[in-house]
Amino acid sequence: MTTHSARKFIQLESEFLMHRGGTLPRVDLAYETWGALNSRRDNAVLLFTGLSPSAHAASSGEDTSPGWWEEMLGPGRPIDTRRYFVVCVNSLGSCYGSTGPASVDPRTGEAYRLEFPVLSIEDIAGAGFEVIKALGIERLHTVVGASMGGMTALAFCTLFPHAARGLVTISSAARAEPFAIALRSLQREIIRSDPEWHDGNYDAGKPPVRGMRLARKLGMITYRSGEEWLGRFGRERVSAEHAPGDLFGIDFEIESYLESHANKFVGQFDPNCYLYLSRAMDLFDVGEHSGCVATELGKSTVERAMVIGAETDFLFPLHQQEELVECLHHPDREVEFVVLPSLQGHDSFLVDMDRFRPPISRFFDQD
Amino acid sequence: MTTHSARKFIQLESEFLMHRGGTLPRVDLAYETWGALNSRRDNAVLLFTGLSPSAHAASSGEDTSPGWWEEMLGPGRPIDTRRYFVVCVNSLGSCYGSTGPASVDPRTGEAYRLEFPVLSIEDIAGAGFEVIKALGIERLHTVVGASMGGMTALAFCTLFPHAARGLVTISSAARAEPFAIALRSLQREIIRSDPEWHDGNYDAGKPPVRGMRLARKLGMITYRSGEEWLGRFGRERVSAEHAPGDLFGIDFEIESYLESHANKFVGQFDPNCYLYLSRAMDLFDVGEHSGCVATELGKSTVERAMVIGAETDFLFPLHQQEELVECLHHPDREVEFVVLPSLQGHDSFLVDMDRFRPPISRFFDQD
Repeated sequence: MTTHSARKFIQLESEFLMHRGGTLPRVDLAYETWGALNSRRDNAVLLFTGLSPSAHAASSGEDTSPGWWEEMLGPGRPIDTRRYFVVCVNSLGSCYGSTGPASVDPRTGEAYRLEFPVLSIEDIAGAGFEVIKALGIERLHTVVGASMGGMTALAFCTLFPHAARGLVTISSAARAEPFAIALRSLQREIIRSDPEWHDGNYDAGKPPVRGMRLARKLGMITYRSGEEWLGRFGRERVSAEHAPGDLFGIDFEIESYLESHANKFVGQFDPNCYLYLSRAMDLFDVGEHSGCVATELGKSTVERAMVIGAETDFLFPLHQQEELVECLHHPDREVEFVVLPSLQGHDSFLVDMDRFRPPISRFFDQD
Repeated sequence: MTTHSARKFIQLESEFLMHRGGTLPRVDLAYETWGALNSRRDNAVLLFTGLSPSAHAASSGEDTSPGWWEEMLGPGRPIDTRRYFVVCVNSLGSCYGSTGPASVDPRTGEAYRLEFPVLSIEDIAGAGFEVIKALGIERLHTVVGASMGGMTALAFCTLFPHAARGLVTISSAARAEPFAIALRSLQREIIRSDPEWHDGNYDAGKPPVRGMRLARKLGMITYRSGEEWLGRFGRERVSAEHAPGDLFGIDFEIESYLESHANKFVGQFDPNCYLYLSRAMDLFDVGEHSGCVATELGKSTVERAMVIGAETDFLFPLHQQEELVECLHHPDREVEFVVLPSLQGHDSFLVDMDRFRPPISRFFDQD
């Protein structure tokens, strides 16, 4: 097990007002940092995560275990921590140190569970803003995020128009479209259908494991691509013989792959937190306030933006990246659009490092 | 309720040997017919269905309720029943009159359930062959199938190389690829995870409704397309107010759409039959015998073939249609490839009639 010894915390001084109503009387936020803030305080990079990762994006002296974006972040890496001060925040609503539905409500002494107020991407962005404020940063060099983290970075730029000079979104979207909503809604219903869920009141020792496993399998199917799996697994069968009579057991390699990924995930993530974060993505529409994505993104003073997408990503498809590029267009802003022919679908940014390193390096080497 | 008064039956005279082992001592096959067999017996069209439809492809004098391919089949329609004698067979393993896991095993007097032998697409093709043999047809004008029905038509042409002069496959595949296997495997696991499934021994009055609903929702997500839903639903919300506190209830139109489709399906289809048919699709590989799809399809004496695919179909994607076209290539065979820009994904052949009518008409008008 990781010791999480690199994890730092802040506790907000006042209650936190949620974007869609309700308050949190006490908010703890977990984060990690790499590198050092310079004297001008202008070299800070804020990294928002996807739905499930913790703030442990990369190893450090304090925690040598590899992080979820290990190859992208560190000395001599694309986001070079000899030059940049990088902050990664565990999302509000998550379960890796930041306050979320699994945290104890100080008003009741019990875990929030479904009493947690509706979570919005804007709340996660606001919590990230509190962290950089506490660190004495007025304006970020860049805010970066992939997937849900990209949505959060977009919300951050509209809510705090002066808080970032640069923006990098990866495999993200200005708003959730019905195809992705359908998939996430089904994942949530699968979890809620597990009798062990008990309307959110599961035993800590007996969570809805089956529902979480099935939801994770559906997640994996949407995070990768058919092209990748065709080349990688084809119609290969697992070598082990079937148990006799196990008509519907694991037979194909692809089934075994999903099984092992799902088993790894279960027990690592709190089901209620998963439900809240998943729903927050559906609710997200950066253009909600004025009805126009471009108007909202036009409020931001971001000077340089990069939008990266993967051709095989069908969860956050290329037309959503194109929409972002169009809506980020502004006379005072340089916008670069990078389309990568990665095979690994939505997850490409986590695995196809050879293709993702060059554009990220280019962004952070320049300027 | 439909009266099924157009449904006819044959009962096979001897036991049925299953493709992957095991036997069925008694097989009943349900089918419907439209039009009349001509004196030369060369105007017969055999139609295989997708996973869930019955043999009721179209209305007739005996059953005036609309069938699942109503607009394609009938007097003056693309498959013109004034000219053709059309036979549609309920798949072996299904639950609309043909023998399947929900049927009674005459050896035990109990329903087969999971004692039913492994079902293969080849078995469904073989059962279809028995029906046309019983009707006195030696060689079909054309065998037609979409989705699983297309797989069945391909198996039919390789198992009975002289039994068809024409072949039309729609949104089908020569073999299951890992992406589709993953999705179907997950659907099966969702059903099997419903506590009411009871390892296949559910009460007739208390089937695994929740599992079937969730599996059907996943099916619907894979049968349509994100493009269609974006135009049709966007981010529209349902008009009804949420029940207070129902954080994860239906909010978006797309969620309501899936809910109503899933509710319609449940109760109509036997869960064990669904599992067997779904698995049969995964196991299907027309090239299994020799290791080569082209070699197997080369055995068929089909003279005219049409392969139709929809651009937005990601369950049976265009590269699988292209593979079929390449592997059907033969000096003595005319092969037409039709790619349709339909928005409705895999289901396009059921709904985008304006695009599907012309090629089907062309195929059946010629010759």
